[in-house]
Amino acid sequence: MTRILITGGAGFVGTRLARTLLARGTLAGRPVTTLVLADQAPPRAELLADPRVQARTGPLLAQCDALVAEGFDGVFHLASAVSGECEADFDLGLRSNLDSTRALLDALRARTQAGGVAPRLVFSSSVAVFGPDPLQPLPALVGDMTLPAPQTSYGTHKLACEYLIADYTRKGYVDGRSARLMTVTVRPGRPNGAASSFFSGIVREPLAGLEAVCPVDETVSHPVSSPQCTVDGLIAVYEATREQLGSRLALNLPALNVTVRQMLEALEAVAGPAVRARVRFERDERIAGIVAGWARGASAERAAALGLKPEPSFEHIVRRYIDDCRHDDPAALRGLAHDR
Amino acid sequence: MTRILITGGAGFVGTRLARTLLARGTLAGRPVTTLVLADQAPPRAELLADPRVQARTGPLLAQCDALVAEGFDGVFHLASAVSGECEADFDLGLRSNLDSTRALLDALRARTQAGGVAPRLVFSSSVAVFGPDPLQPLPALVGDMTLPAPQTSYGTHKLACEYLIADYTRKGYVDGRSARLMTVTVRPGRPNGAASSFFSGIVREPLAGLEAVCPVDETVSHPVSSPQCTVDGLIAVYEATREQLGSRLALNLPALNVTVRQMLEALEAVAGPAVRARVRFERDERIAGIVAGWARGASAERAAALGLKPEPSFEHIVRRYIDDCRHDDPAALRGLAHDR
Repeated sequence: MTRILITGGAGFVGTRLARTLLARGTLAGRPVTTLVLADQAPPRAELLADPRVQARTGPLLAQCDALVAEGFDGVFHLASAVSGECEADFDLGLRSNLDSTRALLDALRARTQAGGVAPRLVFSSSVAVFGPDPLQPLPALVGDMTLPAPQTSYGTHKLACEYLIADYTRKGYVDGRSARLMTVTVRPGRPNGAASSFFSGIVREPLAGLEAVCPVDETVSHPVSSPQCTVDGLIAVYEATREQLGSRLALNLPALNVTVRQMLEALEAVAGPAVRARVRFERDERIAGIVAGWARGASAERAAALGLKPEPSFEHIVRRYIDDCRHDDPAALRGLAHDR
Repeated sequence: MTRILITGGAGFVGTRLARTLLARGTLAGRPVTTLVLADQAPPRAELLADPRVQARTGPLLAQCDALVAEGFDGVFHLASAVSGECEADFDLGLRSNLDSTRALLDALRARTQAGGVAPRLVFSSSVAVFGPDPLQPLPALVGDMTLPAPQTSYGTHKLACEYLIADYTRKGYVDGRSARLMTVTVRPGRPNGAASSFFSGIVREPLAGLEAVCPVDETVSHPVSSPQCTVDGLIAVYEATREQLGSRLALNLPALNVTVRQMLEALEAVAGPAVRARVRFERDERIAGIVAGWARGASAERAAALGLKPEPSFEHIVRRYIDDCRHDDPAALRGLAHDR
């Protein structure tokens, strides 16, 4: 029997993680009996229909103490404001990404200090902890041991939380680990406030029959991961033993390193030239400036040691997205010719 | 005209910094007209006698907003709980070292956002941000670009604050920089709660005619700096231009890398064998465990580029300490033979 909390449990990654955990039925060898999805929005009805699922709706900061008092064996802490939002609203970033994580950690610590077992905690960090640094230029691939240099508040807060989680773990208050997510692509739905939103948009919108604007040039390279590959990574990091993780509790998840051009070539190979032609290049200096501060690629040696692999190709990622849409939202494929 | 705030201004380093600034009379080419010393304890009468000096006594967290509202051109943020205290009292560490710095940053930000000029801020970080890491063993000398791996809450909070200060600076809210202090030796007075306290004690107590206990063995190597060298470093980092600092706002201050044996040999060379004989070795597993997690030595290439150098030898540091005592507190030398 195991009770699991997912913060950000109604979000895109959280929903998919919940679905995967429910389908597996077990986590770290124990049956998942209760899955609490905490988020500002309620989870999908499909998830709530499962008797193991419960929703806790509200801002994380306000409900942290009450949530933790319920007692969980494990927590996936995914709740987060995205990079573009944090750049636009500094207080929002501090509150959503730094203060909420601190409040969660202190609530978990209080419970452990009151005699509980230190719960396992997987924190969704980000490849955004890395940034360009004229004193030590980013390597072609940022690795687990690359010196971070965040260029956004989002990356700064993720990094600060990684180090806090390592310290709370060292003290025995939680059994924490931080998985650095790559840019999750293709996200369904609408564009969000993330500066990386276009990495999904340039695939998603053309497949839906819509025009997409790419705000950076086609030589931009970036480490991406499919939603399912990301969820599989979060679960593997949860299930890893402390011995497997070793002394460092933060690690990169696997990345497929692709250029915008390779993404569009994959889109064309899967969906045809008419779909690709819906992508138009129009430089956005704000977005391009943020993206210029990001890693061009990533390696993930420690995740590989846990058995995790990146997607084999971006074509594979596009095909997975199309399969998901066929199941969840066929209208998202109205731009795709029927014979494909 | 320049108005300067020193948090921790009645502490050991703060007092010496204040004295040095008053003696210089200028900072970054402008006359120091007001020097506010904020601390939990009042500053020395000698400092308060200077018409430029004002005291603000109380916990930093509680008086942050009122302090910042006074308006400062520059801040030296030295207030901090020490490593041993933070290991013993986790909440104290969070409050004194993380929350207080955050409150100071947010108060400074509010003032800048209300139309002020972003004040210059020097944060006293620490070589304790580094630690041993089986995945990437510490180099013989930890450098400006070594990947941090703090092994204490103290080092964790200092590192988190370094990254927050870099982000507040990137956003233009402050003009921040973080100077990583080496272990300041010889500290006068009594042992404090720092795990590093014995690095001063094994020199200070024998010179005062007292027995000293060394809790680690004599092969332990450590990066140290004299009080004056540390203060000179803080001032140079304050006066450095953003161009000189480049993209990274945290840098090591110069270190003299010495073993305990070399420290005792220097003590004997300066003060004689009878003084050295007052040091007794008695291993303390708690202290030895913390110290084993520290850097054995440090390099400071970027500080060197600002013209900063370490002390030439530990003998030099012992002699400086003796000279200071002759001026400030002759009783601290009652263990020293008169002919020396």
